[in-house]
Amino acid sequence: MIKYPIKKLKLEKETNYSNLGMTLENDIDLTNNYYLTHKKAVIHKKPTPVQIVNVNYPARNKAKITEAYYKTPSTTDYNGIYKGRYIDFDAKETSSKTSFPLSNIHDHQIEHLRNVQLHGGIAFLIIHWKYFNKYYLLPLEVILSYWDNKKDGRKSIPYIDFINHAYEIKISYHPRLDYLTVLDEYYL
Amino acid sequence: MIKYPIKKLKLEKETNYSNLGMTLENDIDLTNNYYLTHKKAVIHKKPTPVQIVNVNYPARNKAKITEAYYKTPSTTDYNGIYKGRYIDFDAKETSSKTSFPLSNIHDHQIEHLRNVQLHGGIAFLIIHWKYFNKYYLLPLEVILSYWDNKKDGRKSIPYIDFINHAYEIKISYHPRLDYLTVLDEYYL
Repeated sequence: MIKYPIKKLKLEKETNYSNLGMTLENDIDLTNNYYLTHKKAVIHKKPTPVQIVNVNYPARNKAKITEAYYKTPSTTDYNGIYKGRYIDFDAKETSSKTSFPLSNIHDHQIEHLRNVQLHGGIAFLIIHWKYFNKYYLLPLEVILSYWDNKKDGRKSIPYIDFINHAYEIKISYHPRLDYLTVLDEYYL
Repeated sequence: MIKYPIKKLKLEKETNYSNLGMTLENDIDLTNNYYLTHKKAVIHKKPTPVQIVNVNYPARNKAKITEAYYKTPSTTDYNGIYKGRYIDFDAKETSSKTSFPLSNIHDHQIEHLRNVQLHGGIAFLIIHWKYFNKYYLLPLEVILSYWDNKKDGRKSIPYIDFINHAYEIKISYHPRLDYLTVLDEYYL
């Protein structure tokens, strides 16, 4: 019988010291936690969807999942409420110096964000350009202007369009990535 | 070495044929799916949160989770948007004939629903009384009137208060549990 190597899952992505040692997901979690404790907004990350196949009960009240698989999420990762408005977004990172590849976004995520906007919610992406260490709030409209012309045109959004059509989120200590201030300025 | 019995997790709860063979969770999922496809609302169940400890890669592109544990959810199970409003709720079942025990609700869920309401969202529970096969939308206010007096009073909400202060959700074929009609009538 062949023994396959067992890899331990890294629960955190690679540490980036230029960024106070945190990952994008951690930065957003810290920010959302700040918003929650300061009664500014209620925005949470959804758990990663997992298909559970087998569970052991080695001790009373202690269920151990022994077989499970990752499932494709049907929505984005983050949603919640701010000033009475429904907020919905996903967070993405790119190492590119020139353009953000649309292949980073899944069909079902675009479909979900379109539906959110249709019902009056605020839909966007937060994108971290690792090379520039810049964070942008990219409105759904900008994404769609590329997405809906994907077949006959570019398959990525150039960095220059972020400068012109997206909103920079300044990184700071507390809250880490104050994206609600951007919403205040441009949406509300 | 003692071998503990391996139990296979039941992915669906006990089938209730009086209720078209579906569970409360399935009924709500079907309802939300109906709302989504009919462009009425975007409301999803959040995945069950799981702490992943070990992952195997028996084949390329196929990650198998081999050790994981259930985590306590920090919010309710359902949220989304309807007519521009943020919606947030949890679903509970009781076999009681007389009263709904407050022990079915967790502190952090009440805290979360309070926060949602504070920011302008609509917060409630959907409760299935299995004995009567009745479904009620129970507004947060009613829950809080019991919850906040828990120490010196009742630890459950009597069925009569559901008749008087909650809103019945009629079961039907499609959508299964039309709770948005109840929101239309009493909230919007």
